Amino acid sequence: MLNKISQEHMQRVIALSENNFKSGRIPIAAIIVDKDTNEVLAEAQNDDSPIGHAELLVISKALKLLKTNRLDNTHMYVTIEPCPMCAYAIAKSHVGKLYFGCEDKKGGGIINGPRIFEYENLKKIEFISHCFDDKTSKLMTDFFKIKRNQQL
Amino acid sequence: MLNKISQEHMQRVIALSENNFKSGRIPIAAIIVDKDTNEVLAEAQNDDSPIGHAELLVISKALKLLKTNRLDNTHMYVTIEPCPMCAYAIAKSHVGKLYFGCEDKKGGGIINGPRIFEYENLKKIEFISHCFDDKTSKLMTDFFKIKRNQQL
Repeated sequence: MLNKISQEHMQRVIALSENNFKSGRIPIAAIIVDKDTNEVLAEAQNDDSPIGHAELLVISKALKLLKTNRLDNTHMYVTIEPCPMCAYAIAKSHVGKLYFGCEDKKGGGIINGPRIFEYENLKKIEFISHCFDDKTSKLMTDFFKIKRNQQL
Repeated sequence: MLNKISQEHMQRVIALSENNFKSGRIPIAAIIVDKDTNEVLAEAQNDDSPIGHAELLVISKALKLLKTNRLDNTHMYVTIEPCPMCAYAIAKSHVGKLYFGCEDKKGGGIINGPRIFEYENLKKIEFISHCFDDKTSKLMTDFFKIKRNQQL
């Protein structure tokens, strides 16, 4: 069970995801917070580029903001299990801890697919999965239902 | 054996890598070319960020330049086997063909590590490995030798 502060962070991620959904984009968002003060340092949503994933974008923002190469003192919250690309970016930038709403059986890279965090030579990132499973899974299902109908 | 045009593209990548080395950075560079005209569309070198890899940067530039989400009509040339993050970015952006100078046994993600291109739900990217094996391997070895000496 998440504590109150982590719940609030996940709720912010869900609100950002819902906004992205309303803009016709995949409902995925990520935030990075200071692990001690819990201040939100950076926010991002997936954009239309094939590599415009919220996690990559928010890491890039946080690295610039903190003028650092390491995000050890931060926690990241994201809607759904990151893909292999983002999982690698999270490990390389030493994110202190990762929370994600639901798993992604098809495209995930942490508890599914290549399980990037288990590779040697990469920082072992602590993570909490299935944080807001029902709500985030429903967001994704609703989005892909609409996308499929649009393609019919 | 590479044809003359591909050799010239790899030589450009090596020149960019050597420039990066002279700036104290890891000697890795990538270019994206039009697969029909062979015009160089975008170039990039690794920067100091943990996610500032030449492949990600050059894909980002090419997507913006061509105002597209798909790089099917391009070929990418890069110094060394891309990491799992970049391999995934290459697959997601549908790069037409990938050439890399040497393999990366420790950090590679294509013929080493998670072998990202073999995963389902990802475009199968055609690639030519070990294009300029001796020259690119030596660049990397020389760089890490200096880095190790600096840490002594």
